[in-house]
Amino acid sequence: MSSERLIYLPLGGAGEIGMNAYVYGYGKPGKERLIVVDLGVAFPDMDGSPGVDLIIADIAWLRERKDRIEAVFVTHAHEDHVGGIAHTYGQLQAPIYARKFTANIAARKMDEHGHPADAIHVTSAWPQQVNVGPFTVGFLPISHSIPESSALVIDTPEGRVIHSGDFKIDLTPGVGEAFDPELWAEVCKDGVKALVCDSTNVFSREAGRSEATVGPAIEELVSSAEGMVVATTFASNVARVKTLAVAADKAGRSVVLLGRAMKRMVEASLETGVMKDFPPVVSPEDARGIPRENLMLLVTGSQGERRAASAQLARGKFQGIEMKEGDMFLFSSKTIPGNEKGVIRIINQFSERGVDVVDDSSGGHYHVSGHANRPDLETLHDVVKPQVLIPMHGEHRHLREHVKIADAKGMKGVMAVNGMMIDLSGNTPKVAEYVETGRTYIDGSVQIGALDGVVRDRIRMALNGHVTVTVILDDEDEPLGDPWVDAMGLPETGKSGASLVDVLEEDLSQFLGRSKAATLRDDTKLNDGLKRVVRQSANDEIGKKPEVTVVVSRLS
Amino acid sequence: MSSERLIYLPLGGAGEIGMNAYVYGYGKPGKERLIVVDLGVAFPDMDGSPGVDLIIADIAWLRERKDRIEAVFVTHAHEDHVGGIAHTYGQLQAPIYARKFTANIAARKMDEHGHPADAIHVTSAWPQQVNVGPFTVGFLPISHSIPESSALVIDTPEGRVIHSGDFKIDLTPGVGEAFDPELWAEVCKDGVKALVCDSTNVFSREAGRSEATVGPAIEELVSSAEGMVVATTFASNVARVKTLAVAADKAGRSVVLLGRAMKRMVEASLETGVMKDFPPVVSPEDARGIPRENLMLLVTGSQGERRAASAQLARGKFQGIEMKEGDMFLFSSKTIPGNEKGVIRIINQFSERGVDVVDDSSGGHYHVSGHANRPDLETLHDVVKPQVLIPMHGEHRHLREHVKIADAKGMKGVMAVNGMMIDLSGNTPKVAEYVETGRTYIDGSVQIGALDGVVRDRIRMALNGHVTVTVILDDEDEPLGDPWVDAMGLPETGKSGASLVDVLEEDLSQFLGRSKAATLRDDTKLNDGLKRVVRQSANDEIGKKPEVTVVVSRLS
Repeated sequence: MSSERLIYLPLGGAGEIGMNAYVYGYGKPGKERLIVVDLGVAFPDMDGSPGVDLIIADIAWLRERKDRIEAVFVTHAHEDHVGGIAHTYGQLQAPIYARKFTANIAARKMDEHGHPADAIHVTSAWPQQVNVGPFTVGFLPISHSIPESSALVIDTPEGRVIHSGDFKIDLTPGVGEAFDPELWAEVCKDGVKALVCDSTNVFSREAGRSEATVGPAIEELVSSAEGMVVATTFASNVARVKTLAVAADKAGRSVVLLGRAMKRMVEASLETGVMKDFPPVVSPEDARGIPRENLMLLVTGSQGERRAASAQLARGKFQGIEMKEGDMFLFSSKTIPGNEKGVIRIINQFSERGVDVVDDSSGGHYHVSGHANRPDLETLHDVVKPQVLIPMHGEHRHLREHVKIADAKGMKGVMAVNGMMIDLSGNTPKVAEYVETGRTYIDGSVQIGALDGVVRDRIRMALNGHVTVTVILDDEDEPLGDPWVDAMGLPETGKSGASLVDVLEEDLSQFLGRSKAATLRDDTKLNDGLKRVVRQSANDEIGKKPEVTVVVSRLS
Repeated sequence: MSSERLIYLPLGGAGEIGMNAYVYGYGKPGKERLIVVDLGVAFPDMDGSPGVDLIIADIAWLRERKDRIEAVFVTHAHEDHVGGIAHTYGQLQAPIYARKFTANIAARKMDEHGHPADAIHVTSAWPQQVNVGPFTVGFLPISHSIPESSALVIDTPEGRVIHSGDFKIDLTPGVGEAFDPELWAEVCKDGVKALVCDSTNVFSREAGRSEATVGPAIEELVSSAEGMVVATTFASNVARVKTLAVAADKAGRSVVLLGRAMKRMVEASLETGVMKDFPPVVSPEDARGIPRENLMLLVTGSQGERRAASAQLARGKFQGIEMKEGDMFLFSSKTIPGNEKGVIRIINQFSERGVDVVDDSSGGHYHVSGHANRPDLETLHDVVKPQVLIPMHGEHRHLREHVKIADAKGMKGVMAVNGMMIDLSGNTPKVAEYVETGRTYIDGSVQIGALDGVVRDRIRMALNGHVTVTVILDDEDEPLGDPWVDAMGLPETGKSGASLVDVLEEDLSQFLGRSKAATLRDDTKLNDGLKRVVRQSANDEIGKKPEVTVVVSRLS
């Protein structure tokens, strides 16, 4: 028996959808050589993370072990898998392996952060393999909603592990590689120790549909449209973008790409050869000379993002183009939970312009998911036949359901959420350790911990408003003049009808007047007293207890 | 020809779902006698209205004409129809008419605000009518998801108008009155001038299902459950609450009501006689002595509200009761767009406890909507046969779609959004006037206008953080000591590695040092200069431009 062990440790993505970051290790306990799979982002929201730009997994555990990291592998170019690469490279400085298209996207991110492009090693698909420490890793193509998505075949001294990445079972994906059951069977034929598996659509009970099924419906819709047609989808879903463009072309419409990501993804696909051809594109300037019934715009912003092309068109002109009565807007996409309000907002704005909106609510004619539904997950289980199944890429409810399925099918299902280090050595996987994990906020140009209190204070100011109190004390600790109050995010007047600021200043003056020298001398007591007065007085006046900043200046 | 006219003016609810407030008037232009139909609330969110408690329609237009208001009619007791009654009574002071159950709920609200209970006049159902100025108004029962929901039959010198209120076509609603096609046909047989009609489910193409259809599915689910069962629905959906309780009773489970609204609605239904009987209920204390497989809890919080019983059970114990592995939680409800994240949060918390969650995603077995789907809307159109159809209770997209349906069916469809006063006199409805409308925020104990800037400042502080700058100038306008900086909601350190506050103080000191006397003497120039330095310096250091409060104290 060797004392080496094989470990699996999710730092992000197991307990949420987004922010993927998984670690595998092999070696003596505490000395394992490590590889990282994916370093993605999650997106902030006003409810929980106002003002934050992006969220990545807290990588403190990796940072403290950076000399043990052999490599980072990126399964595909979605932001929740690749978006954290450049934000973490400075801390980890490990070589990055990815296939051509993914590397193209990742390289731009590295470049924007001033990191060396040659940190990224472009790797071919299986059967090519990369040797990194005790691991041999290959990129096994699998279909998803972006080109060159790959599972990882991770060979270890303890056996073969398959990390599925994001996937669906699609035999006709349009752009990109089809799922190849024979190749997969071949790879798995000698036995797979563990399948670490996407769980996103585990609650969808019907078999998923192929990307190829949306083409005819989209073509019919576009050819029957009378005015201008504008369609949105995730720009990275290059197959869909092409399907939309082909539908335009067939209907005699010129294609316009609007939004940075839309242009960039089409470019990257052509540059890397994952897409062989694309209908001719005209610029927004040239589009102005073309009758609107001969135009089709492909635009960013399928999730209603305020700054994206879709939202700008909903509000008015964008790059000289304006939607009008009789035009059509197509969401060839699904609204991600949490984004409903933004999407509904732009649908209503289009309604006000007389634009007809077609979305996926009519029953999935114009969109299919990129993730495997439950029957498709089972298809993969049956091809891979792993001893152990570890669900990932899901919230707790998804992982739990996926474990139940695994157990029912005679695999060992392992519930591993962020921070649970699983020892996969031997025959019985077990929890080896609980690692502290969390979220790191990319906030402006700074990284802050989610629990640092910075964002908590922002939320409090948003809920309660803010009051600044300034008091000046002379060299005998006596108030010099009256206290000064400034309020932000609070009503100007309350119950009494007098100005809130005046009421607070008056109450603070009275407080100072009756305060003993011991209070006036003591910064802490004075601060606490002033805060208490503001909060009580505001509560009486406006029914709200604001956040308070007290500045006491002593001239002594 | 008389110079009198009949007007319709939505102040809230036409262009959104929520915050219903509709006005009808009859008389010479500018002298119409008015009635108000519903005064409801909408709910705030972090994205657009952080810190706000409730939202009502801006009633400035009504307030300025309060001597012309004959009465307020409340169609039913949902918060988006009755929730604003007590918040506006002080300003309008008009008598309120409602049926018994609605009046019971409204009276508590009036009481909580210290308004007289006798402002509410309990009215029986049709054929009773109330004469108010030029109007004669009757409450015509219609099925919905709350007892005693009613359409209003508004007789005017220009003819009969039907205001549908919220409704569905349900012949077997359980608790409450069934839709009665014969009664409706009788009421409408002499011709209806205008139908002002609910539009919520206009995009749902299948006929709606009756409340009675959920009973069997719920009974089967509850009887097959092994552990404790907890179910949530809107408490005001008394029919559903009873269906759930009956299912518990049949399965030999004692019923516990958790959450204030749940107890109150059951009480109000029994008090007013709209519900004749209800299975026996045990208290949470007594429940502790009952085996969990013999318990069923009916709890508030179907929308994932943080303080409701459902969310508290998801986080831990509530009133001594705790959910455990093997228990079941049923959402007998639909998640309203915008509430998805809150609902998903508690589902995951239950998952962590090993609780099985059943929701409506499986296809509507355990919930039906309270609003008429498109075929049911058409049923009502066909019964009422109005000359004019004015859609209400919908976002712009709903109203627009409903107008299209009306036009296609040969009625005159009128698009009327909040603030559009429609003149219904004569044969051709036309826009008479555009009235300024908006939203009023109930914020603590104060009412503020949505555009007052208060909430805008809160949002800015949430996104950008806040910095307080204090500068003291002596009697010669020279800085006394160094400027003082306090930061809230901002990272402690940025690019340079030094404390952000120190960096800002240093940059402000330098600014003061190089400022000319003309700047130091001028409050505006000095304030602007200090703000600019903070924003630029913070942007360099942390990539963010904070909100700034500057306090300049002059000892002169």
